[in-house]
Amino acid sequence: MKSGDFLENYKIVFSYDGTSYHGFQVQENALTVQEVLERGLEKIYGKKIRVEVAGRTDAGVHARGQVANFFAPGNISSEVLPLALNSVLPRDIVVIEASRVDQKFHARRDACAKTYSYTINNGRFPNVFLRLYSWHIADRLCVEDMKLAASFLLGKHDFKAFQASGSSVETTEREIFFLEIEQRGYLITLWFKGDGFLYKMVRNITGTLIEIGLKKRKPEDMQSILRSGNRQNAGKTAPAKGLCLEKVFYHHTDTLL
Amino acid sequence: MKSGDFLENYKIVFSYDGTSYHGFQVQENALTVQEVLERGLEKIYGKKIRVEVAGRTDAGVHARGQVANFFAPGNISSEVLPLALNSVLPRDIVVIEASRVDQKFHARRDACAKTYSYTINNGRFPNVFLRLYSWHIADRLCVEDMKLAASFLLGKHDFKAFQASGSSVETTEREIFFLEIEQRGYLITLWFKGDGFLYKMVRNITGTLIEIGLKKRKPEDMQSILRSGNRQNAGKTAPAKGLCLEKVFYHHTDTLL
Repeated sequence: MKSGDFLENYKIVFSYDGTSYHGFQVQENALTVQEVLERGLEKIYGKKIRVEVAGRTDAGVHARGQVANFFAPGNISSEVLPLALNSVLPRDIVVIEASRVDQKFHARRDACAKTYSYTINNGRFPNVFLRLYSWHIADRLCVEDMKLAASFLLGKHDFKAFQASGSSVETTEREIFFLEIEQRGYLITLWFKGDGFLYKMVRNITGTLIEIGLKKRKPEDMQSILRSGNRQNAGKTAPAKGLCLEKVFYHHTDTLL
Repeated sequence: MKSGDFLENYKIVFSYDGTSYHGFQVQENALTVQEVLERGLEKIYGKKIRVEVAGRTDAGVHARGQVANFFAPGNISSEVLPLALNSVLPRDIVVIEASRVDQKFHARRDACAKTYSYTINNGRFPNVFLRLYSWHIADRLCVEDMKLAASFLLGKHDFKAFQASGSSVETTEREIFFLEIEQRGYLITLWFKGDGFLYKMVRNITGTLIEIGLKKRKPEDMQSILRSGNRQNAGKTAPAKGLCLEKVFYHHTDTLL
């Protein structure tokens, strides 16, 4: 039996439709995913519980496999927890997995890689069912040029040129493991996997790739933009709604039970 | 040159997300797709224009390839019309095609077949991105039993048992050309093609197939339900949100220009 004070560390995997939320972190005068999640936990456990999340997504950005951890009493099993949480959460947030993890596990600090997708509808007309989950670009994109440009970003680089201006981090060096561009009919999906991404880095790279796909820039320009380390040389930030945090990766087997 | 009074007959193909609409037909105190479409036409042509639609969808039902026709002045070309209409329509209705057709063409009367899809999420948890476009059934469905049951519905039959009670039509005989059940991961899609469908027929058949998939009824029960001609013997009506009018078919080449 557990003592009344002992709190288990829970890891949850969850999806959300970011359309109605002002990003992840708690802010004044704006409903955030974190706030709604913490309210849900409070309803279940009867006390305030703070969540730590793997990747803070911006307003309008979606997630299929976001991860968070929080400390809570052990009275609800990992099997029941997703059902209990989903019963109190709004329908645009769904918990799909829960597990008890090591006390030291931290969803953000321990994440070793993340996968994001960015969806582009390159058809003549918007798709009503994807209007909130894709960027509609009616002009035909040259996917071959985009693929060549993307290849210059693979590996370890200083990605300062793709960091939102005004943000500050210890280092702007990151490693991109893969950046694949998949075309199925008029849908183009960009898949990014890296050890971490700077603020708005995926959307700034996407915006630059789109300008290359539209032949406004050459694929080789990606090299000089990257080397310049200057945000002003890169393309516009792609809209939030096309972006989705797909998966967060951890080194160690992090489940205890 | 056309006389000022001459009106062209236009056929349009359009998609809509039915979530926010109270069905297709104009009703009091409820926003309908028809109303919004006619308002859009009024903005473009500067006068009231009545549309005739191929298939009147219920509240919450979606369409990927709905068809309508209307009479309007010939001053806007078929190429420009979708762009003009989309610029005044809300983002959950998108016109994807327009053509000038024979004066006799009537979107509903001339339709010789329609395809509908019904999407079921048979995963453990709801999918946030499909929550408005699918029916979530967490209990595992036996697709083989559903396929066997569906096979009894193929061909020409009296489908009175699957017609919403209280509706009246000249004949309740219809022909189902195909009813295929496709499984991809946890998504199950039912594809219906027929010469016409009675009121709520697709949703009533789907509800019955689900009860069979859940082993509440045997596949062979479909035969006796069909033969009984009694709505009370069939299953519950499946929710509107999983249903989508995919395509409307016409016998003749109906484009003039």
